[in-house]
Amino acid sequence: MGLTAVYDILRSDLEQVEDRLRQRTVNRYEFVDLAVRHVIEGGGKRLRPMLSLLSAKACGYTGSAMYDLAAAMELIHVASLVHDDVIDEAALRRSRETLNVRFGNKVSVLVGDYMHARVLAILVGCGATEPIYAAVADATQSMCEGEVIHAYKADDFEIQVDDYLNIMDLKTARLIACSCRVGALLAGADPDIVDAMSVYGSAVGVAFQIVDDVLDLVGEETTFGKPTRNDLREGKLTLPVMHARDNCSPVDRERLRAMLLADERGPDDVEWIVNLTQRHGGVEHALQAARDLSAKAATAALAAPESGARDGLLELATALVERDN
Amino acid sequence: MGLTAVYDILRSDLEQVEDRLRQRTVNRYEFVDLAVRHVIEGGGKRLRPMLSLLSAKACGYTGSAMYDLAAAMELIHVASLVHDDVIDEAALRRSRETLNVRFGNKVSVLVGDYMHARVLAILVGCGATEPIYAAVADATQSMCEGEVIHAYKADDFEIQVDDYLNIMDLKTARLIACSCRVGALLAGADPDIVDAMSVYGSAVGVAFQIVDDVLDLVGEETTFGKPTRNDLREGKLTLPVMHARDNCSPVDRERLRAMLLADERGPDDVEWIVNLTQRHGGVEHALQAARDLSAKAATAALAAPESGARDGLLELATALVERDN
Repeated sequence: MGLTAVYDILRSDLEQVEDRLRQRTVNRYEFVDLAVRHVIEGGGKRLRPMLSLLSAKACGYTGSAMYDLAAAMELIHVASLVHDDVIDEAALRRSRETLNVRFGNKVSVLVGDYMHARVLAILVGCGATEPIYAAVADATQSMCEGEVIHAYKADDFEIQVDDYLNIMDLKTARLIACSCRVGALLAGADPDIVDAMSVYGSAVGVAFQIVDDVLDLVGEETTFGKPTRNDLREGKLTLPVMHARDNCSPVDRERLRAMLLADERGPDDVEWIVNLTQRHGGVEHALQAARDLSAKAATAALAAPESGARDGLLELATALVERDN
Repeated sequence: MGLTAVYDILRSDLEQVEDRLRQRTVNRYEFVDLAVRHVIEGGGKRLRPMLSLLSAKACGYTGSAMYDLAAAMELIHVASLVHDDVIDEAALRRSRETLNVRFGNKVSVLVGDYMHARVLAILVGCGATEPIYAAVADATQSMCEGEVIHAYKADDFEIQVDDYLNIMDLKTARLIACSCRVGALLAGADPDIVDAMSVYGSAVGVAFQIVDDVLDLVGEETTFGKPTRNDLREGKLTLPVMHARDNCSPVDRERLRAMLLADERGPDDVEWIVNLTQRHGGVEHALQAARDLSAKAATAALAAPESGARDGLLELATALVERDN
């Protein structure tokens, strides 16, 4: 049924989440409010809220605190994007001007901090329990660690696949796992089901990031909403390219290294790397890794009793890997 | 007895706080750990931990969770300094290279975020209650608001004293009030005493900031640990200068405006502004405002029963205003 079908199932719930996202971030200072609106109304897949909702429902939750919790998860994600854009000096995000371009780095750093403060306020407001705070603390810490390690290892042509996947786990998957976990915790699920939801989210999160990397390499500019091959242009190694690196001839490997470590790469360089990657099956290899993770996620989701929400989790695990944008 | 005497009373407690600060921020990734050490070992007055400790003790607390809570308050403060230094592109902080100069903006933004994640983890670890989380959420939000408003109003020569004091309250005093409040909450104090501790902290916080501004204007470079007259050099209005602005001749007012709004101010300009400020009693006026706040704080502290810790709070309120560095 695909991603759209999951959105359809959750449509009214996601509207509640959007309401919460807006309401809980309103600021009496017009300038702060304006900057926050700019970011929140920039949209996004709302993957983390979807997962919190599905996880809570799959564990039998029927209350309304899940909307707040789901909004908090999205807000953590959005805050990290705002800080990433400062860090990367990015000009566009989802085809919109980034906050730092529009308002300056100063405001961007502070608005990201403000959002984190609001996350805490939302958690207090929806009666979060200690394990929920602990999950959020762990996820936000992991995200920072992943970003720092990634920044530190960005120029390491020799980075191993396991190290790379660990960074993906820290940067992306931990918050996605947390989004699932807090849903289950809110529902008061048994510890083994709570853990299963974390396993599901973690696997889905890494798969999601791998597919993002693949789409950056072979996706179309129009459907993906941001210039594709950004990673290559910036000289970033991703899983498909790493596979080519580890399987090509020594001569090609040296050429790849020189290109990625150069200050800039022209369109011809980027094209050459894409061709090298495809010639060595890098894209297919990465997609297979994503599919394996998707299967692992599906198995974990089966720990929850049968329900429409559990079907949604199963569907999402597949749809995130099969998407083309 | 002065500030040193209060330090003496709290010496062994503050050592516990330092231990917690180090232990609770250790990171398994060497690079993250190195950056955090750089910041934490940069020192500082540890005013916020002192206040959490004194407030908890004044309300009868005798456990060890206050050390964690005090460390968390300092960590929030330090994280805000790290982000401020990114924002202000500052090169020195407490006579040391700032993190952004040493490691780059990227790492600074992330290390600040990491510290916030650790704050949450510390709160979870010491069994914080909902009112404690709420106080932290409120304080961190206010800090961001204050910074944004300050950035936004930085060029407003006409800013009113009340608006300026409101910014000081948001930027500085709310976290100081929070540091007192969480101490009282941890001790399980009655709501009116909890509120009195907040009032104490808020008044002390604004007074502290006013004295900082005065010392930036008339303090010595050697004792204050950072180049004095920074604010003036950057064209920032502070309370003493605002008093001169509101009491000088129209001609001087225009000259002051032109100087502060210019792209740069030379040593002669800065000297002229200092002279104008002193001629109109700006320094004495600001110090009197700080003393009034100190008296207000002392009155609030009397809500707690008599004790050595309460004496410490009373002493601190005076010492912070009488300090010369």
